[in-house]
Amino acid sequence: MTNPHALHNPLHIASAYLSAWNELDAVRRRTMIAAVFTADAAYADPMACSAGHEALDGMIGAVQQQFEGLRFRLHGKQDGHHDVVRFSWALAADGAEPVAYGTDVALIAEDGRIRSVTGFLDVMAP
Amino acid sequence: MTNPHALHNPLHIASAYLSAWNELDAVRRRTMIAAVFTADAAYADPMACSAGHEALDGMIGAVQQQFEGLRFRLHGKQDGHHDVVRFSWALAADGAEPVAYGTDVALIAEDGRIRSVTGFLDVMAP
Repeated sequence: MTNPHALHNPLHIASAYLSAWNELDAVRRRTMIAAVFTADAAYADPMACSAGHEALDGMIGAVQQQFEGLRFRLHGKQDGHHDVVRFSWALAADGAEPVAYGTDVALIAEDGRIRSVTGFLDVMAP
Repeated sequence: MTNPHALHNPLHIASAYLSAWNELDAVRRRTMIAAVFTADAAYADPMACSAGHEALDGMIGAVQQQFEGLRFRLHGKQDGHHDVVRFSWALAADGAEPVAYGTDVALIAEDGRIRSVTGFLDVMAP
């Protein structure tokens, strides 16, 4: 996927990224992961780390099982500069209060895909 | 400087980093920069980017001139995981309300020094 404009659109990047996290259909999710992440993209948050489409897909599938019925949504504003974007998210069941909030920092490759994500937890429900 | 514990001490790393930003004595600042950053460390925020001790020192000196009389201080909490730390700061004159708040994400090398910083502005006074 070549998308030279994505670098300047943190909202677009963040939305596509969270859509991949929320996609429950395995085939569609895999396609979205390939569209969103470079082949060797790396991910790290306080609880997990992985690299490459297959490992990312496995990690996202495991998180979906762990937090069944919950979905990620954008929270607050997105920003970015140079080759980096920052955005915050909430994890919640439809119509319910979020159980967690976090902020992710993503490095963007020249083709507009994410080459690394560093995730942080901002608030976790007790 | 070998400091294997720094990786697990975001407060220590953030404090040493902001101290370098606040150091007005050119010789001391250069020493602090060498202690805090790896030789090829890179920095990028919405307004500037630089890499290596000499360029970092020049950038910090220029920011000190631009915001004369203001100092960076820690704001809120620090966190970290794997090889990354996150912390927020405020920029203010002594005893005055901050003129800006930001959040920095730093990658830490094995020797405990910072190998890259990605900075974001959270609030800028109008």
